[in-house]
Amino acid sequence: MDRIQFMQEAILEAKKAYNEEEVPIGAVIILNDQIIARAHNRVRNLKDPTAHAELLAIKEAARVLNSERLLGTSLYVTIEPCPMCLGAAIWARIEELIYGAPDPKAGACGSLVDLMNSNFNHRPRIIKDILKDESLSLLQKFFLERR
Amino acid sequence: MDRIQFMQEAILEAKKAYNEEEVPIGAVIILNDQIIARAHNRVRNLKDPTAHAELLAIKEAARVLNSERLLGTSLYVTIEPCPMCLGAAIWARIEELIYGAPDPKAGACGSLVDLMNSNFNHRPRIIKDILKDESLSLLQKFFLERR
Repeated sequence: MDRIQFMQEAILEAKKAYNEEEVPIGAVIILNDQIIARAHNRVRNLKDPTAHAELLAIKEAARVLNSERLLGTSLYVTIEPCPMCLGAAIWARIEELIYGAPDPKAGACGSLVDLMNSNFNHRPRIIKDILKDESLSLLQKFFLERR
Repeated sequence: MDRIQFMQEAILEAKKAYNEEEVPIGAVIILNDQIIARAHNRVRNLKDPTAHAELLAIKEAARVLNSERLLGTSLYVTIEPCPMCLGAAIWARIEELIYGAPDPKAGACGSLVDLMNSNFNHRPRIIKDILKDESLSLLQKFFLERR
């Protein structure tokens, strides 16, 4: 599978969140060209402020690999991660982080703050704008319906 | 109880982590002068890169209050939180964050990065240097023993 196909899987997760009336963001984690974890935002249904798609996917991947270090993995997420989720990706030693659309309100890859410009020991390689429009339009639809 | 006493409870949690051979950081969350959650770092034992003291305490407080918003709470933590944990505190709408010692390697309240200087909708009030020496010496002892 290629980058577009993995991001399509993350979008499928975002659509699950949408159907559950959660902010529609989805994530998958890849190791050796295989999806090892997938998750979507579940903050409201779990009543857990940390239940963002990326954080849930990271916890699931750590469970699957039986390790707190997700070496060699790629994290695909439909929207630019917030400081909490990018921080988790840094601690997990995720190698590559691929996101769809920027998040001006909470994005930590340069939109609101730039953790990538700091002196952390480890920083994932960042690739952006993969299926950006599709990721963004799902989010915009969600918020427009709730105005 | 006063601030010193609450921080002493966080230090008790840090000592539990130390005894479990985890990086010794502890946290408690207070609502209406009562401890509603307490936790210590468990990254290695849980094999979960997100199992920092603050994140575990926030998840526990959300469970106790049956809400993803921890309005009116204070989070006490022995060491300056990292971006992941400060990000979680922001999402949880924690009102006040009190920490002991700064963390030059990962602190997000100004030591490595400064999330407090960004434009998040919500930012907790920060109080630092409460039982700083005691919090720091426990951490230093841990790392000295492992050199």
